[in-house]
Amino acid sequence: MSSSSDKTSKALGILNTFKHVEQLIENIRNKSVDESHRDQLPIELNVSEESTLKRRAFLKSETGQPLNYLTGSQSFSELNSLEGNIENYIGMSMVPTGVIGPLRVIGSAANGDFFVPLATSEGALVASYHRGAKACYLAGGAASVCLVEGVQRSPVFKFSNMADLGIFVVWVLQQTAEFAAITAQSSRFAKFTDLSANIEGNHLILTFEYHTGDAAGQNMVTLCTDAICKFILENAPIKPVMWFLESNYSGDKKATALSFTNVRGKKVTTEIILPEKIVNEVLKTTPEAMADYWRSSTVGIIQSGAIGAQGHYANGLTALFIATGQDAACVAEAATGITRMEHQKDGSLYASVTLPNLIVGTVGGGTGLPTQKECLELMDCYGPGKARKYAEICGALVLAGELSIAAALSAGHFSSAHKKFGRKKT
Amino acid sequence: MSSSSDKTSKALGILNTFKHVEQLIENIRNKSVDESHRDQLPIELNVSEESTLKRRAFLKSETGQPLNYLTGSQSFSELNSLEGNIENYIGMSMVPTGVIGPLRVIGSAANGDFFVPLATSEGALVASYHRGAKACYLAGGAASVCLVEGVQRSPVFKFSNMADLGIFVVWVLQQTAEFAAITAQSSRFAKFTDLSANIEGNHLILTFEYHTGDAAGQNMVTLCTDAICKFILENAPIKPVMWFLESNYSGDKKATALSFTNVRGKKVTTEIILPEKIVNEVLKTTPEAMADYWRSSTVGIIQSGAIGAQGHYANGLTALFIATGQDAACVAEAATGITRMEHQKDGSLYASVTLPNLIVGTVGGGTGLPTQKECLELMDCYGPGKARKYAEICGALVLAGELSIAAALSAGHFSSAHKKFGRKKT
Amino acid sequence: MSSSSDKTSKALGILNTFKHVEQLIENIRNKSVDESHRDQLPIELNVSEESTLKRRAFLKSETGQPLNYLTGSQSFSELNSLEGNIENYIGMSMVPTGVIGPLRVIGSAANGDFFVPLATSEGALVASYHRGAKACYLAGGAASVCLVEGVQRSPVFKFSNMADLGIFVVWVLQQTAEFAAITAQSSRFAKFTDLSANIEGNHLILTFEYHTGDAAGQNMVTLCTDAICKFILENAPIKPVMWFLESNYSGDKKATALSFTNVRGKKVTTEIILPEKIVNEVLKTTPEAMADYWRSSTVGIIQSGAIGAQGHYANGLTALFIATGQDAACVAEAATGITRMEHQKDGSLYASVTLPNLIVGTVGGGTGLPTQKECLELMDCYGPGKARKYAEICGALVLAGELSIAAALSAGHFSSAHKKFGRKKT
Amino acid sequence: MSSSSDKTSKALGILNTFKHVEQLIENIRNKSVDESHRDQLPIELNVSEESTLKRRAFLKSETGQPLNYLTGSQSFSELNSLEGNIENYIGMSMVPTGVIGPLRVIGSAANGDFFVPLATSEGALVASYHRGAKACYLAGGAASVCLVEGVQRSPVFKFSNMADLGIFVVWVLQQTAEFAAITAQSSRFAKFTDLSANIEGNHLILTFEYHTGDAAGQNMVTLCTDAICKFILENAPIKPVMWFLESNYSGDKKATALSFTNVRGKKVTTEIILPEKIVNEVLKTTPEAMADYWRSSTVGIIQSGAIGAQGHYANGLTALFIATGQDAACVAEAATGITRMEHQKDGSLYASVTLPNLIVGTVGGGTGLPTQKECLELMDCYGPGKARKYAEICGALVLAGELSIAAALSAGHFSSAHKKFGRKKT
Repeated sequence: MSSSSDKTSKALGILNTFKHVEQLIENIRNKSVDESHRDQLPIELNVSEESTLKRRAFLKSETGQPLNYLTGSQSFSELNSLEGNIENYIGMSMVPTGVIGPLRVIGSAANGDFFVPLATSEGALVASYHRGAKACYLAGGAASVCLVEGVQRSPVFKFSNMADLGIFVVWVLQQTAEFAAITAQSSRFAKFTDLSANIEGNHLILTFEYHTGDAAGQNMVTLCTDAICKFILENAPIKPVMWFLESNYSGDKKATALSFTNVRGKKVTTEIILPEKIVNEVLKTTPEAMADYWRSSTVGIIQSGAIGAQGHYANGLTALFIATGQDAACVAEAATGITRMEHQKDGSLYASVTLPNLIVGTVGGGTGLPTQKECLELMDCYGPGKARKYAEICGALVLAGELSIAAALSAGHFSSAHKKFGRKKT
Repeated sequence: MSSSSDKTSKALGILNTFKHVEQLIENIRNKSVDESHRDQLPIELNVSEESTLKRRAFLKSETGQPLNYLTGSQSFSELNSLEGNIENYIGMSMVPTGVIGPLRVIGSAANGDFFVPLATSEGALVASYHRGAKACYLAGGAASVCLVEGVQRSPVFKFSNMADLGIFVVWVLQQTAEFAAITAQSSRFAKFTDLSANIEGNHLILTFEYHTGDAAGQNMVTLCTDAICKFILENAPIKPVMWFLESNYSGDKKATALSFTNVRGKKVTTEIILPEKIVNEVLKTTPEAMADYWRSSTVGIIQSGAIGAQGHYANGLTALFIATGQDAACVAEAATGITRMEHQKDGSLYASVTLPNLIVGTVGGGTGLPTQKECLELMDCYGPGKARKYAEICGALVLAGELSIAAALSAGHFSSAHKKFGRKKT
Repeated sequence: MSSSSDKTSKALGILNTFKHVEQLIENIRNKSVDESHRDQLPIELNVSEESTLKRRAFLKSETGQPLNYLTGSQSFSELNSLEGNIENYIGMSMVPTGVIGPLRVIGSAANGDFFVPLATSEGALVASYHRGAKACYLAGGAASVCLVEGVQRSPVFKFSNMADLGIFVVWVLQQTAEFAAITAQSSRFAKFTDLSANIEGNHLILTFEYHTGDAAGQNMVTLCTDAICKFILENAPIKPVMWFLESNYSGDKKATALSFTNVRGKKVTTEIILPEKIVNEVLKTTPEAMADYWRSSTVGIIQSGAIGAQGHYANGLTALFIATGQDAACVAEAATGITRMEHQKDGSLYASVTLPNLIVGTVGGGTGLPTQKECLELMDCYGPGKARKYAEICGALVLAGELSIAAALSAGHFSSAHKKFGRKKT
Repeated sequence: MSSSSDKTSKALGILNTFKHVEQLIENIRNKSVDESHRDQLPIELNVSEESTLKRRAFLKSETGQPLNYLTGSQSFSELNSLEGNIENYIGMSMVPTGVIGPLRVIGSAANGDFFVPLATSEGALVASYHRGAKACYLAGGAASVCLVEGVQRSPVFKFSNMADLGIFVVWVLQQTAEFAAITAQSSRFAKFTDLSANIEGNHLILTFEYHTGDAAGQNMVTLCTDAICKFILENAPIKPVMWFLESNYSGDKKATALSFTNVRGKKVTTEIILPEKIVNEVLKTTPEAMADYWRSSTVGIIQSGAIGAQGHYANGLTALFIATGQDAACVAEAATGITRMEHQKDGSLYASVTLPNLIVGTVGGGTGLPTQKECLELMDCYGPGKARKYAEICGALVLAGELSIAAALSAGHFSSAHKKFGRKKT
């Protein structure tokens, strides 16, 4: 049971996303490709100084970003700026960072062509995502929509017996206005949006859900929920014999089946229709083979006892999260979702990805660190007002990756790609 | 159904791990704490230049590692060394890196005190793991054992009907000697160890399992399986109508329930018995409260539909993986496991963690990159012969993190720790 | 994401359950055992005519039910009464039926001592549940509360793209008043209570939730949702390219992780505190051993990749469902839940079970069949106004079974019980 | 980790199943329909005495079975024959029983046309399965193969620490010959086939797997494992501090993700290719619509967090299990599997079901009860040597049900079927 005092907010969330649905439709219907942009990113898969310099120059001309820290032309020295990010500091780990794009996104917050930085040491990863992005670009872009938002904390309260619990829960479910007020006092950004109750014997899990503005928000919801719990403990007509601020029910840092019913962070769904020609020419396979692969691999993953059904969301998300100062450990929950591919009657391929657990932000956390801020700015995703945009780019990135790996596997190129890029040559 | 041509290897794997069980027992029974070592790591949670320099000096004296790239005293320029790690390179993302320790490990491969580098931008993470490590150290160290190893690829073969599949599978299950030979020709390091068959209608998933030496091994097993499949397709008495090199059954880059029955990479289990005094003084709570928290949180996570039951394996593993050149996207599968805490009759706390999916290596991948190699060397975990050692340290790290978060939650300090370390002060 | 137009109903559901919480508390606090009742049910585990007659006489005197069909004193002949229950009828399968009790229940709808009929061919099952019921009875009864109710249908609508879906969903989420009206026209009993939306690419799953009075309600919600969908298809501003009345998301006839977040049918939680003496004397073990077993078995079930954590809910529920004309196939979903056992400081055992998926009814379906109606009447659970009562008895039955099996396993008697009762002697 | 001392047996199991693969192919290739048989079962969906008598006469002429108890022409009186099946007996629950067929099966053990008894009170169920069976019959029959067999018990042993556990496990893995001998002494039918070890901290779960002949086998494996454990406890070089005969890992009475990797009972896979004409005429829909429905519903069930992907296995299995004296509570685990439907290039529909957890038997348990024995005999499935045959019929039954429900949902007839059959007319 999930008894919500007010989940209407979520429906309103959807309504809000689709408020300008006419504009979205307009954008989707008028998809087109700026031919001048096509293939401008100097791709050279062997890492050479020359190609690196070309790419940097290209990115600077396209986005105005000099990437001083990332390129090493500026070195980091302001240790005190690290406060709140690290303890027992000893230095900076350097993670090789490549770029893909243009990744064209048609969304409710993200609209345009993006060059997406990926920090990884796994050969073939950037090349693979780049290929998927190219297919999307040539097809006019991926439609990507952030549907709903919410971050939770789920404290658990334990009672001597369920009658005591009953007294408590009746009281607590009537305090939502108070909880909203406490939230407003505890945080400038957090908005209390929902409360649900889960009873299991003498255990009561209360799930507090919040909008966290443009921050990923885990700390914010921890502090607000702690303040609410203090109020509860002081004022409840009956006290729990024990309580913990997190019952391990909220899904923090773990994949859960709950994801598909709720949201954790931001829920994004992204789709594309790829004409047969693009599948043939860019992805080197056929829509039919990709749909066949999808069907077989979906039955395969079901047998593995996984949550959701997808190929390798973790690859792109981890690389993007590291590059842009997200909490990379959240890949544990973010890399969960549903990929779908269908061979359509007109010969094209329909493909979509749905990610219910994108815990991401464009303020706070690691977003202001030297290279991370640069990488966010490369996509115009740094700072307030950018988190939904960032999430919609995540969706498009993940879609590009799913298309590319499914193409490689359906065409029998998966192994050769790894032979080419994924091994040290020495 | 999993029909194995030879899973005996896994039992032998266990036997092998426990071959020197007498030595392990000896080490466990004679646990002690080197008082001189205690608290030598200059801890200063605010990031200052002075404390940073002290820590570097301490680590150099303890381990002999100057950490030139990590500290920025040497800058990176040899772009061509990145080949095989990245495409479309534009620069280096810098991730703040702290250190915890000494983390004392009593294992079958790792034995001693380790200073463990963690790359993260999430405040409070390093401090929390450090606290857990301290508790383990004072209790004489965590026993950590790498039990079995294996990495899989799971191609799927599709037939017109299950009779054709039957002819094929009867033949293929008799070719294991051939598969071992092909593996030996395809890779210097991979050893073919097992084959199992999963039939679902006209689909046959064959899972090939390998030992991959000290490499994480995903590329290795891809190439070997591809070579085996080519042999199969040429020689089988009947050809599949379709096949794909990976059926999405192997668990690559995703949490699966399969984990607990099989292994993916390395399976490690780690345990500690913490005297009440250490729980009180270092973890600021009681064994009873921690066991209570464990019980409540285990029931909580079950209700969330997660796989396994743990607190935040992803935090420590992601930070260590980034620092040491692992495939950080593998956190999706590695951050799965079972944590257990029990209040024992003598008042102490028994705690264990079990990680069945540690895809890690000490050769290949990103292990040779500048800062990553340094961080591996800091733990004497760089190069051949070190992967099991590294895995056992992972287990101890994760245990430290579980102890610390459970202590914070059971004592009501979870929120205040995040208030202290986890926010930018500005 | 689950976006609900109104889930407030669920919170109100809880509030409603606990409306008379004072009375519930009163009942729980004043638990006592009617000593005259104790052990009156003539238990004789070998099946003999004499003991059978005694039990029938006892039940008749206690409950006034002659059980004519069940005992065979009346034979069935009115074939036309089977219409709506069976097609291609050839006869009646006879399932041996035993009884346990008194099972004392303290609930919001069920209050009193019940003799519970169980139809099964598995030896030891009835004896085991009877033993658990006896322990509960001697401890003053199990507190059992039906928390919330709801049955769902989840049609899926497919669109050309997500922009079309957006137009549709914006419209559909505003039609809830219309949906309630259509429901009222389609069924005398169903009440439309909630609508939630799940978007995945160009797929929209709408979950319609209903209260179904005292019927299990699956047919009812099918017919109502069909009527609503017809309205939607006629009036929506944009039509789906495809739609299906059930997306396989509702959890009909299958265990789902969704269960713990939602409800399917009725959610019941039941608890008891067993004094050490009763555990020793009736269950032949100790509270400590049972709590130890619970902890080990919970970690065991987690590793098996099951949903929830319980021992053998299916045994008692299947036997009761067959005896009382429920849809026994719903055991697939009903036998999901959480069992918890704790050794308390005062030496007693706390135990609870939570069943979120009890699809049960006391009207319609097979409830009016000859023996089934008798078995319902034996518990005064036949007809309107009895479904919540029946559900609370289910909870207490399941708790009795969990106690008994955990006791047997913790004491090492599991095998001997099966040797004694579970085998044909020949 | 699953470390097996010998899982080769399972591969051999497959080899054994496919030993006569040529004959199976022959049978599949020469599929044909006996036109004289077609539609002979007097179907009359309204329950009338006349149609009931006709069906009984037809079944008697076809199978020679008079079904005396089922039809009520003989009444039950030998109470002592119930020993081992029930305690506290009070009478017989009567469950309405219909029949479907002919269900044509082409298997490794079942070959021929079967009339399948289904005991249920849910209207529309029998009609729906009958329709699916008709489609299969007209297409020449369903190929159904029992692939592997095995029933498990999973005791858990707990030690002071993992070093003690290591000593124990090294010893225990070397005792498999002894375990086989103990099994042979403990049971005439059980054969010890496999042992695997799962280590989690100081917990060791040992999974003992057996062939149980033609019995479902749960009691048999309990007794054998108990005997083995007694040997272990007497002879092990180190004793566990605690142990339980079942760790709740074996999957007894619950759906587990483990199912797809292992087997529990019998694993059966069943397939059919339905020509477009049969889909149109019998199922009233198109192969394309059914494949579309399959894809949508598979994505739907994934989002619900279920195990496997299927429609309503529980319906047919529960009804068959009740009619034939199986342990109906095992539906909790048996109703797990994978359904797949594909629209093939030649316009036909490929469909398959895979059930890894069929805990069924044709000797022992409730198989010898009056009506249950008759229902088994109706399919020539009573007694020794019939269990694999019975399992293959289960597969075909389940396939028929999946076809029928998917057809109804894809054609929009799901609701009307329930309106027609599923409601009391009064």
